[in-house]
Amino acid sequence: MTSAAFDPASLKYDDKGLIPAIAQDAETHEVLMMAWMNAECVAKTLDTGKVTYWSRSRQAFWVKGETSGHLQTLIDLRYDCDQDCILVMVHQEGPACHTNRRSCFYTAVREGETVELMEPMV
Amino acid sequence: MTSAAFDPASLKYDDKGLIPAIAQDAETHEVLMMAWMNAECVAKTLDTGKVTYWSRSRQAFWVKGETSGHLQTLIDLRYDCDQDCILVMVHQEGPACHTNRRSCFYTAVREGETVELMEPMV
Repeated sequence: MTSAAFDPASLKYDDKGLIPAIAQDAETHEVLMMAWMNAECVAKTLDTGKVTYWSRSRQAFWVKGETSGHLQTLIDLRYDCDQDCILVMVHQEGPACHTNRRSCFYTAVREGETVELMEPMV
Repeated sequence: MTSAAFDPASLKYDDKGLIPAIAQDAETHEVLMMAWMNAECVAKTLDTGKVTYWSRSRQAFWVKGETSGHLQTLIDLRYDCDQDCILVMVHQEGPACHTNRRSCFYTAVREGETVELMEPMV
């Protein structure tokens, strides 16, 4: 096991300065959502423990759950071998999806048909 | 539960025609890797049951494990509420990572330091 000081700038961002971040429930291991971070989001997430994405539509920081109350609390932040993707293990309050489903990945493709796997939580 | 015919072209691809695809172990639920697909990769993955990405460095189809033997067999293909991210539930033969680790996400950031969580499998 080796360790070294971490610098958010050491990750690889795309031409818009963004890196994909996968959120996984730290307890159930369900994949909840995928969104984007810039280097400042990575620093904020580590500093505050509140998972903070970059909203591409609003071009603004997006503290997950800040308005909905469905906060994502950081349990562990990991990144991949190529340093171009982040995995956040989180505690998710309520639904992660804006459709009120626990996970955004509620649609499957089975035998050529789309199948809805989850109902909204509320 | 609703169902409808699935068309790979109905997903949202970026300006390079690509969509991020997260691979998760269908049994342990470990997140193994993230790579990219185009619409043809999605169709091939569903048709063959072998998870097929687009190699951005080689600009070619990449049937995961075709050369290494570390095949990814599709168990279930899902996509998110925005139709701009795929989650493949897979059976992974051996390591998913080119470093011979089971998962590409073997580095964590804890108290400002990077920590290696996994050793190579072989």
